[in-house]
Amino acid sequence: LIEIELQAARGLQEAELVLKNGTIINVFTETLQQADVAICNGKIIGIGSYHGKNEIDCTGKFVAPGFIDGHIHLESSMLTPMEFTKAVLSHGTTTVITDPHEIANVCGLDGIEYMMEASKGLPLDIFFLLPSCVPATSYEESGFRLTAKDLAAYYFKDTVLGLAEVMDYNGAIHGDREILHKIADAKEHNKVIDGHGPELRGKDACAYIMAGIRSDHECTDIEEALEKLSLGQWIMVREGTAAKNLTALKGLFQPPYHQRVILVTDDKHPQDILEHGHMDDLIRMAIANGADPCIAIKTATFNTASYFRLENTGAIAPGYNADVVILSDLREVKVEKVIKDGKLVVNQQVITKLTKPDIPSLLEDKVYHSFHCKELQPDDFKITPKKDINKATACRVIQFISGELLTKELQVPLKNGKPDNLPELDILKLAVIERHHHTNHIGLGFVTGYGLTMGAIASSVAHDSHNLIVIGTNDEDMAAAANCIREMQGGWAIANHGKIVDKLPLTIAGLMSTLDAETLSENIAKMKQTARSLGVEEGIDPFMTLAFVSLPVIPELRLITTGLIDVRKQCHVSLFI
Amino acid sequence: LIEIELQAARGLQEAELVLKNGTIINVFTETLQQADVAICNGKIIGIGSYHGKNEIDCTGKFVAPGFIDGHIHLESSMLTPMEFTKAVLSHGTTTVITDPHEIANVCGLDGIEYMMEASKGLPLDIFFLLPSCVPATSYEESGFRLTAKDLAAYYFKDTVLGLAEVMDYNGAIHGDREILHKIADAKEHNKVIDGHGPELRGKDACAYIMAGIRSDHECTDIEEALEKLSLGQWIMVREGTAAKNLTALKGLFQPPYHQRVILVTDDKHPQDILEHGHMDDLIRMAIANGADPCIAIKTATFNTASYFRLENTGAIAPGYNADVVILSDLREVKVEKVIKDGKLVVNQQVITKLTKPDIPSLLEDKVYHSFHCKELQPDDFKITPKKDINKATACRVIQFISGELLTKELQVPLKNGKPDNLPELDILKLAVIERHHHTNHIGLGFVTGYGLTMGAIASSVAHDSHNLIVIGTNDEDMAAAANCIREMQGGWAIANHGKIVDKLPLTIAGLMSTLDAETLSENIAKMKQTARSLGVEEGIDPFMTLAFVSLPVIPELRLITTGLIDVRKQCHVSLFI
Repeated sequence: LIEIELQAARGLQEAELVLKNGTIINVFTETLQQADVAICNGKIIGIGSYHGKNEIDCTGKFVAPGFIDGHIHLESSMLTPMEFTKAVLSHGTTTVITDPHEIANVCGLDGIEYMMEASKGLPLDIFFLLPSCVPATSYEESGFRLTAKDLAAYYFKDTVLGLAEVMDYNGAIHGDREILHKIADAKEHNKVIDGHGPELRGKDACAYIMAGIRSDHECTDIEEALEKLSLGQWIMVREGTAAKNLTALKGLFQPPYHQRVILVTDDKHPQDILEHGHMDDLIRMAIANGADPCIAIKTATFNTASYFRLENTGAIAPGYNADVVILSDLREVKVEKVIKDGKLVVNQQVITKLTKPDIPSLLEDKVYHSFHCKELQPDDFKITPKKDINKATACRVIQFISGELLTKELQVPLKNGKPDNLPELDILKLAVIERHHHTNHIGLGFVTGYGLTMGAIASSVAHDSHNLIVIGTNDEDMAAAANCIREMQGGWAIANHGKIVDKLPLTIAGLMSTLDAETLSENIAKMKQTARSLGVEEGIDPFMTLAFVSLPVIPELRLITTGLIDVRKQCHVSLFI
Repeated sequence: LIEIELQAARGLQEAELVLKNGTIINVFTETLQQADVAICNGKIIGIGSYHGKNEIDCTGKFVAPGFIDGHIHLESSMLTPMEFTKAVLSHGTTTVITDPHEIANVCGLDGIEYMMEASKGLPLDIFFLLPSCVPATSYEESGFRLTAKDLAAYYFKDTVLGLAEVMDYNGAIHGDREILHKIADAKEHNKVIDGHGPELRGKDACAYIMAGIRSDHECTDIEEALEKLSLGQWIMVREGTAAKNLTALKGLFQPPYHQRVILVTDDKHPQDILEHGHMDDLIRMAIANGADPCIAIKTATFNTASYFRLENTGAIAPGYNADVVILSDLREVKVEKVIKDGKLVVNQQVITKLTKPDIPSLLEDKVYHSFHCKELQPDDFKITPKKDINKATACRVIQFISGELLTKELQVPLKNGKPDNLPELDILKLAVIERHHHTNHIGLGFVTGYGLTMGAIASSVAHDSHNLIVIGTNDEDMAAAANCIREMQGGWAIANHGKIVDKLPLTIAGLMSTLDAETLSENIAKMKQTARSLGVEEGIDPFMTLAFVSLPVIPELRLITTGLIDVRKQCHVSLFI
């Protein structure tokens, strides 16, 4: 095999495929280069003047390495790996590094293995980092708790590149044995360790980095990014559906900083992918923010591969995997053709037919049946006054802020044992129902700022433990919406007048659909419209808001299965005060 | 342990050592940075404002990562690893990557193991690449032939970073199975493969690089270097005792090329180290050639470590090994102090006391007894006319060129069955005696341009097979000089009037001395003086000339144990024509 490649490289026999007369984006010299690209056996074998059995005329086109998403939670696309592949491949993405943190919180190791199996044989290299913090906080009721011992065996897999974002940065710098054990295992296997240190600065940043964490994707301003970069971290510039940091960090795309910069999406929703694209969109945006096109592309190809030690990925050069994007326009990053492992897989938006990965039925059964909770009754949503209720004069209410994930804590006076529904507040009931282990735990609370005027809305996408969340104007509709999701084994549901008025199954762990991106997107749009018709305010994404209201790491007040959490104090607080 | 480091990093307890108020060379931002450097357990734990149990005031000083030599044959220093360490440590070198190609040609795997054992416990990280081409050419009579199978087991050693320069680039691109096997093994173990492709360009370069060879240290001009760099190779800019390429390649120290540049010495003789230094000298020279000091240092620290995948080496940042050079002058690269693994090992040229590595006596015996040839008689050097000699009208003579390693082939008419000693030629006899396997092979020939007017000079340093070389005016002195070296088990010897007039033992494989650098240097100078007193011309290094006259890869005419080699044709040629 190698003999044939050598012969072809030396021009003594025809290459399998030659990209003729294109302009190569050379990530080593950071310049454009006119040359043919010769390909054999899925590998780039030569740059120069070549002839091939097949040739693609690239005159006037640009030849770039396949794009890499350096950090994504694939579950957030709500698509199976195969449907995700269909959605991003035409945008030039040929490699992603995913952290299966969401499904691991629901299904544990089975969830991780399901994602690995569901990623096999696709024309997209899906690499994995092992979720380091399942559950995200010690007091959350997730489906599984993953220990260092659980993870260790997975480092032997070729597709596992390291330990995923160490969100528990406090644990890491305070010497938590379990998290340090996880870090030590990754190091021992010579794998990377991704960071997650929002606002971690100065000596705490030193401690965190010293522990072996060499990247960060949580920088929101350039000073923070430059501090971390100067301390040796690779900076992952994140531009996703929820969190958008690229504009604030545009200075990083200038030399010499660009050498340590990686473009990532973190979370990218299906409508967002369809409307704006994937890594092509981020590269386009970097260019629009002043990056040299060669440098912008380098931060989504070679840099990413270098950080993850993918030695043969991310460049148009001999010996590299033939993952190639042909662009008809450089600054607009217009993807015309995509070549994966030497095969033309996208031609003018038309994607090659994919073979559905063959997933062991035992694994599939597990992820398709992830609900372990009883049927709900309206009475389950009653907020029963405790015996000291008579002493209470007010209650805590979670206030949503238009356009933000942050919440505020309001303290609202009681009227007849309930929060006074003051004219300026539309106070709704919120429930977080444990759905993994039949504990029957239901966290109950109040919210304002959501806007619902009738019915109830429920979702099983609720970071990071993905319990069942319901928000509603009355207990009957809340029970109906929750039970609908339970029956579907996951998804979104909207009830009104005791009936389900709209629903979307997300049967894979309660997180992902089996639909393709287009159909799913249409359904999502329809669900949102239904939610709006019931009063949900503009500026509030009805489902994303629910997805984050239970995540006890974003200030200020959150609700989990066991009650309210004051995020800043990191402790439970009572509903009534 | 890590708990203490974390506490110290967070400033909650004192660090072991703090470098106070220095100016850090930050290889990530390529800028100077004012900050303290905190060190614990041999590791840099924090950058900022710190206090330590020990503190070194670095006000007005520069704090750089320890220097790395990315490619050296340590044997060419003629020093043991311990004496080499003493010589280079004070010049700021804390890591070298050596290719034990020379000793492997003499002693095989025992030679490699000896070097590994002799490198243990020193305050210098000595990493190894496995010699890929022993012997250098198929027709050479070296001590050993190393197969892929021989090498494979060594990849499991932590100190082995890859496969050393694939000198047999012809074999590699023509699909030689053995060399491809060696390359495949290195790849399988995820190790680097160093290149050696002088003047390899275009499609042949593509084939060579495609095979997996990602560096080159043989570039002599900037066009060649930029071509290889653009094809994905790291360019090792070599500046050693014999080969000097830095000035020609100075353009590489400018962005963006500097990202893929590594400074190396390849071969550096002891006098050269004593007089000019080691990596400090190369960095100084790069700066003098227009490199930004931060970039010059980066090419001898972080870049080298990145290429060799030494994840914790080459930067002043948390989590990196505390290998630090404190400079009193940046542009002059004046080394004041050196810290290795957190310990002060050099202070104002004074080096910490080293512990001699404990080498297994069996290994030591082997490398100290590497001569396996009979005692020589003057008659052995007789050039006996063959039966067709009467037809011969001329003979081939190797012509040395002042200041070059290149030789020319002269064809000189015969007079009385010998080359006519024309007035403009001083023709001497040259012998290359097989000394590894008692084959009694002696290659005999004639040279001119050396200048010797009486006596004979012999050496056991003769690239790459390191047979015994003698050059002389008469057979008696040639035998005396050769026998002296045989008795010493290696070295240099000068005979005159049948007696040894000067000698230098190089008892370790016939290549290395047991002396320290200063004493060895003095002895070398004395030997050279003696050689000059016998007539060796200015412009001819008496021993380096001998060291290369037997290397059948540098044009034009060479002598090996089996006779003359026409290097361009790569075949034997007859002495008489």
